[in-house]
Parts: sequence; structure tokens; C-alpha cells
Amino acid sequence: MTTLLPEGLVTPALVVDPDVLDRNISRMAEASRSHGFALRPHAKSHKCAEIAERQLRAGAGGLSVATVSEAEAFARAGVDDLFIAYPVWPDADKARRLRRLADDVALHVGVESVEGARRLGDALRGSARPVEVLVEVDSGNHRTGVLPEAAGEVGQVAADAGLEVVGVFTFPGHGYGHDAGARERAARDEERSLGEAAQALRDAGLDARVVSGGSTPTVGRWQPGGVNELRPGVYVFNDATQLAIGTCGVEDLALVAAATVISVPAPDRIVLDVGSKVLGSDRSPWVTGHGYLPEFPEATVTGLWEHHAVVRLPDGTPGPGLGSVVTVVPNHICTPVNLADELLVAKDGELVDRWRVAARGTNT
Amino acid sequence: MTTLLPEGLVTPALVVDPDVLDRNISRMAEASRSHGFALRPHAKSHKCAEIAERQLRAGAGGLSVATVSEAEAFARAGVDDLFIAYPVWPDADKARRLRRLADDVALHVGVESVEGARRLGDALRGSARPVEVLVEVDSGNHRTGVLPEAAGEVGQVAADAGLEVVGVFTFPGHGYGHDAGARERAARDEERSLGEAAQALRDAGLDARVVSGGSTPTVGRWQPGGVNELRPGVYVFNDATQLAIGTCGVEDLALVAAATVISVPAPDRIVLDVGSKVLGSDRSPWVTGHGYLPEFPEATVTGLWEHHAVVRLPDGTPGPGLGSVVTVVPNHICTPVNLADELLVAKDGELVDRWRVAARGTNT
Repeated sequence: MTTLLPEGLVTPALVVDPDVLDRNISRMAEASRSHGFALRPHAKSHKCAEIAERQLRAGAGGLSVATVSEAEAFARAGVDDLFIAYPVWPDADKARRLRRLADDVALHVGVESVEGARRLGDALRGSARPVEVLVEVDSGNHRTGVLPEAAGEVGQVAADAGLEVVGVFTFPGHGYGHDAGARERAARDEERSLGEAAQALRDAGLDARVVSGGSTPTVGRWQPGGVNELRPGVYVFNDATQLAIGTCGVEDLALVAAATVISVPAPDRIVLDVGSKVLGSDRSPWVTGHGYLPEFPEATVTGLWEHHAVVRLPDGTPGPGLGSVVTVVPNHICTPVNLADELLVAKDGELVDRWRVAARGTNT
Repeated sequence: MTTLLPEGLVTPALVVDPDVLDRNISRMAEASRSHGFALRPHAKSHKCAEIAERQLRAGAGGLSVATVSEAEAFARAGVDDLFIAYPVWPDADKARRLRRLADDVALHVGVESVEGARRLGDALRGSARPVEVLVEVDSGNHRTGVLPEAAGEVGQVAADAGLEVVGVFTFPGHGYGHDAGARERAARDEERSLGEAAQALRDAGLDARVVSGGSTPTVGRWQPGGVNELRPGVYVFNDATQLAIGTCGVEDLALVAAATVISVPAPDRIVLDVGSKVLGSDRSPWVTGHGYLPEFPEATVTGLWEHHAVVRLPDGTPGPGLGSVVTVVPNHICTPVNLADELLVAKDGELVDRWRVAARGTNT
């Protein structure tokens, strides 16, 4: 990966390998196509217009986003089909913005409560185009979402409020885990919960043509005929967590933080100029430290402050000297991308582009 | 704290109580004055020109920052005395920017290695104004910094490289701890290490007029005659970590995240529309969850995703209903501030100002 970095790079910086990125994007698109799934990648992981465009060109039918303002950012970038995969609670401001979005793009929004469905219906009353809603289902992650059997009631209220109910969705966050068993179990939970919820919609006389699941760990693990849409996010770049749980290899890592060695306090210890304000602080139980160094796979990032990463090298391993530039793969890619104003794009040691993180900080 | 929030606030948002902020600023300024310490607050915690101005007006002689670009942001905001409290490794770009900064402001920079001191001297050769350097000392946190006895050698090399050596500094990060004992021990470590390092400079015939220590937990715990400058950062706002380790009370919390209840999946559970992209993911061993809810002090934020906080309420506690707006105090304030484009300033339910986070994302 070091050959990726241009000479004279100012660190810290996030650097993308566009060849690996393209391979990750086309591989997911191809897998979706061959198994008959619609693909609606989650744009929260990259937040860049240039990457959205590549996903759509590769065959994605639209994008998923997490917030109204993230939808606005991608609508401005020209994406015309957006699913806010979140149970939006529209205040007056968000209601106005949702109506404007519905005028500009094919808009889909999540609901997960009777009150939320009524409120969303009120917010979107009078919008020029119908807004499609999907009922969120809790498939075992226990965050938001209704139990499958309650999907019918929520869907009914949404339909009564003037919304067009088209299906169900879930986030199988419990699919993150060290063992492949966790991913398999979560994929089964998704299939079962989404299947029951879709049936509950149909029993209420509603449409359930979209059955949407999937984060990067569980995609492609379902039987045909149930789940019919994928919403993976992280796969474009992958990260140290995906590497640790085995959903990608080192060759699939498309984004690194470039960092300079600013201190060598001991033969087995170096300090880098990247910290939590570049890498993020996310650390799942399945990763060993605060990031992964591809050139020094036995090294561990044992300490992370805002602008310091302390790296411990195994005894006897020759480490990089003061002033060397090394690369660090973040634990969870969605956080560092959201901290950066731009991603540098480099190929064979040449800086070939700079992509603005157009949807950075779009939290409302 | 709820009375702070204006009606119709769009969530999530970071909201500052300017009265509490002003009290925190003047209290620290007064304590420094009365004990004879110079005060050079760390601006990384707030990154706002308006707060820098308040700190300087209250008596701070200058500010501390962590990076060259953070210094540039505050120089643009009119701050004319800046200490980059970091062992900067100047590449060609940083060298050019440091020279420009040295033309515009009274600039002080950290060094902690012989090679770094030489390189900094080369970088600043020919700058119009002399740049002062401080040698960083490891007082027990084991991040960057030399052992006290090595300060003389690094200082000598810096002086030979044309830099003006003026003293020593340290970050006593090991002062974070549940018990007051940890803070006391770290304060003693600071005094001893800085004292020995200052003596090492003097033994080398160098000046050691600045003896700079202190993060929020250890300030004011030193004996007179040793440490003579403070660099606390978090004290302007405080946070759930400072509350947990006992360096502030609830009444000293000057910044909250305003969040809407978007889901009530069970009587003892609510989900808020703030997640790690608003609150940050930092979690020290001394805090119970991912944030503190002042209106529901017995509640625990048990789960945090990018746009969801799952909050568990003790059995039988009436929780806020769907659509309610509540406040969450972040675990570590420096991270959420760096995620936001602006801070809302509210008094008695009125929005009175918006402060741009001018130094957001200044990592290089």
C-alpha cells in the first residue's frame, strides 16, 4: 500500500486507492445482479458524490442515507433516488425539507411507530410526488424497528396518512462478530423477521414489494425469494473491523490514513501524527487496537489521543524511523470519512484527484 | 438544562450555555491569577474564535493549539500569541506555513527529539521573528516527550539550530482517573519531571522561564515555584468524563447535545437521534455509558451507532415520550465540537448566537 502514497504528501490525510475501490464496487454490484437482489448502497460510509456516481454507474438503483440533510447533499450531487433508511421524526423544518426533497427526487423514508407514521404523513401532505415508506423491523439488533407482527399496524396507519407503503427494512447490526456463525445467524434473523413483517403488510392489504436488508457482513447470505434489496455501506472501502471479522482481505482495503512518525520514544514504540480526530475512536470488541498498519501487520496501535497514535512493535521488529510516512487502516471507516473535508485519490504514487466529502457533518 | 433549549430547535445540535461558559472561563482565569500561573488555554476543545476571545479577555496570555492548521485558524481569527504544543515534524509544506505563521504571530513550538529540533531549525531559518521552542517532557503518560534528563541535549540542538529555547512542557494524561489520588500523583509527576527538565536546560546554559503543565484534571494542584503556566482545554465546557472523575459539577456543564426521541421500543428504553457522528465515540473507563442525560441522571446510554443512541431508564422511571427533545452531555467534549460546523448559543430558551467551529478538522 505504501507505493500508493504520493511524494511530499502532507500528513495526516485520508488516501483512497481508486482501483481497489472500483473492484469493491463492481464485485458487490455483480454479486447483487447474479443473485437477483436490487442494490441500494448506504452512502453514509463515503459521503462523496464521485463514489455515489460510481455505485450508480455499476448498477445501483439508488442510494440509502441516514438523515434528511444527507439526502439533501446527494440530491444536490444529482442522485435522483434516495431512501432515508431511518425513522425520521419530522419537526417543522424537517417537514419542509422533506417536501422539497420529494419534489426533486424519488424519495423513500423509514417509519417504525404509529405516531411517527402519522407525523410523516402530515409532513408530506401536499407534496407533488408520492413518498414511499418502508416499515423498519427489529431483526435482533434491538435498536429501532418494530417487531415483525406489528409491521401491519404501522403500515396501515402510514397508508391512512397518505403515504405509499412499499415494504420493510432492517439493520442486522448483530451480524458483527468474530465468528462466521454470528453473520449466518443474523442473516437468518433478517430473512425470518423481514419475511414475517412483509407478510404482516400483505395481510393488512398493503404492498410489500421491497424487502430490504443487509449490512456488509450479511449481504449475500440469504436464500432466494425473501430479501430482495441490499444496503451495504462499508464495502466500498472496508476497514480494520471487516478485516478482523473476515469479510474482506488486506487487498480489499481501499482507504488508509497516511501518517508521519513524529516520535520514536523506544525501540519497540513509535508515535504517529494521526489520532482520534482523523481515525475516529470506534473500537469493536473484535479488533486488537485503534487501527491496522498494513506494512507492519504485527504492530498494535495501543494508544490513541486526538493527534497521537502510539504504536507498539513486536520485539526485534525494525520499525519506521522518525519522519517516515506510514499508512493506518481505520477501525470503522464511516467515522474518519465524516471527520475529513476531502479524500485524496492516489495511484502508483501519484495524486490523481481530490474528492470533497460533500455530505460531511450532515446530521440533521 | 432543558430551559436552555429554544423552541423549534432542529436536532441534533450542540448547544452552549454562555453563562456557564463565562463562569468556567473566569473561574479558571481567577484561579491562575491568584496562584501566579500564566494561563494558555488549549483551544482544541472549543475551536471557536468567540471563545478564544473570551479566554484572552479574561486574562489568558495566548492560546495552545495542537497542529499548524489549528494555529492558522486562530491566527486568522486575530489571536497573536500561539503555542503549538506538539512536536511538529515539518515537511516542506508545514515548514512554509510555520514561517508564515512566525511572521504574523508570536509563535512557540514543541520539540522532543534531536532530529525534530534540527528539522524545525531548518524549517524556520530566515523567518522574520524568532520562534520560541519548548522541550516536551514525558511526565508519565508515555506518549511523546523526552525523559527529563534528556531535555538539555534536545534544547542544546534546538539552540544550535537557531531556535530560541524558553522552557519545557508536558501533558499529564495519566491524571485522568476515578480517584483524586490519580490526579494528585500526576500533578506530583508533572512538578518533578518539569522541574528536572528545566534544570537540565539551565545546566546546558539555556533559558527555562516557561514551565508549562496541566490538563483540566491537574491544574492548580502544584506547589508554587515550579510549574508556572497552565494549558487546560476541556474546562470551558466540561463533559461527562470530568463529571465522572469529579473535576466539575452538573452546574458546570456548558455544552449539551440536543436530541429528539425517535423511538420508544419498550417502557424502559428510548432511542435518540444523536449518535457517534454527533457525540463522538470516546469512552474512558470512568464513565458508565456513551453520554450523560442531566434531566434523567439515572438513565444510561447503553448503545451508540452513527445516528442512534439507545438509552435505558431504570425500572419505573417515566421516560420522555416520542418526539420529546432531551439533552445529552458528551463523554469527551473535544470530539463532538470537532464534528460540528457550528455551536448554537442559547439563553433562557432563546437562541442568541451561532458560533462557527472555525478550526474544525484542522489536522495538518
